[in-house]
Amino acid sequence: MKIAVLGTGMVGQALATRLHDLGHQVTLGTRDVGDTRQRLADSITADIPLATLSDAAATAEIVILAVQGGAALTTLAAAGPKQLATKIVIDITNPLDFTQGFPATLFVKDTDSLGEQIQAALPDARVVKTLNTLTADLMVNPRKVNDGQHTVFISGNDDEAKHVVATLLGSMGHMDVIDLGDITTARGTEMLMPLWMRLMGALDTTMFQFKVVR
Amino acid sequence: MKIAVLGTGMVGQALATRLHDLGHQVTLGTRDVGDTRQRLADSITADIPLATLSDAAATAEIVILAVQGGAALTTLAAAGPKQLATKIVIDITNPLDFTQGFPATLFVKDTDSLGEQIQAALPDARVVKTLNTLTADLMVNPRKVNDGQHTVFISGNDDEAKHVVATLLGSMGHMDVIDLGDITTARGTEMLMPLWMRLMGALDTTMFQFKVVR
Repeated sequence: MKIAVLGTGMVGQALATRLHDLGHQVTLGTRDVGDTRQRLADSITADIPLATLSDAAATAEIVILAVQGGAALTTLAAAGPKQLATKIVIDITNPLDFTQGFPATLFVKDTDSLGEQIQAALPDARVVKTLNTLTADLMVNPRKVNDGQHTVFISGNDDEAKHVVATLLGSMGHMDVIDLGDITTARGTEMLMPLWMRLMGALDTTMFQFKVVR
Repeated sequence: MKIAVLGTGMVGQALATRLHDLGHQVTLGTRDVGDTRQRLADSITADIPLATLSDAAATAEIVILAVQGGAALTTLAAAGPKQLATKIVIDITNPLDFTQGFPATLFVKDTDSLGEQIQAALPDARVVKTLNTLTADLMVNPRKVNDGQHTVFISGNDDEAKHVVATLLGSMGHMDVIDLGDITTARGTEMLMPLWMRLMGALDTTMFQFKVVR
């Protein structure tokens, strides 16, 4: 599939590389193509083209939003809501506010979520929240912990879009994908972040995951 | 040990019965002994005495707070902060607000927690937050799901109290107890509730648990 990954940080690079390796036609979208090309010269394969946010979104079937939570809505505005209309938008962001130090607090929670704000900003897109509950390395290499025996969650209003995303997650090695329900269920996974951050401290690693046993 | 369980709902009954069966000297504390005796006539063994909140707390070494989150602070005030001073207070409450329907929202979160509010109300007690992330049946019978292979968390400022509580959890069958850190880490486990409630809906059961794999 044609996939645009918006965001060229650690998470965006990891996802773009993995999806490229799986045979997808991946474009990395960035605010400043020249700057990003210099910064990533050594780390991203020459086979993954860079493009502006708008150009990357325009040509993709699936758009993955892989930026800091605080930049989520401005990034989508720069990509262009019209470019994103009807497309599947995979939202992997978390509403983390680091302005008061660590651990971060959440700038939206409980009665709203960043997933819902993104869906509201893109009413014609099919937003699916997922992969916001684990570290980048495990997003793309789930077998690195417990032989891949752990859980990822999906939230969204469109069942067909969730099916496409669950299949994509399966192709990356995720063996247990739980559909929580509509996009309001993103409140639940975003609010997992405070526990995730404390576990990172207690276990002194990011290489852990939640498995829902039942 | 002498243990007072404050609260006679499903959770309080389950914990009192299990701890009694393990050989502890358990008292159930309640606001109205006569009412509770009538209500529980068929469900609680005659071997577990009922007492007022204050009397139950006065004679106990460990006090378990097993009431609705909204009643946590008033229950402790009724038990008497002086009765609770220096004691281990196991807080298993969640700050759930059902006034807007289901799923509940949280009446404290993110920059504070009910665990912290309880510790602040009882500055001389040693508050340990735990068991607030799973259903009552699994609190006391962890082997009912995945042969007991799942995780519970503890938060608190006093290492010795946390050691006592972790040992108690182990005696009930909990095989993986993660010490998250001081009482502020209760924010993390309390904020797990929104995901827990959505999972209950998606899985159509309360008999599930989180296992932290690493």
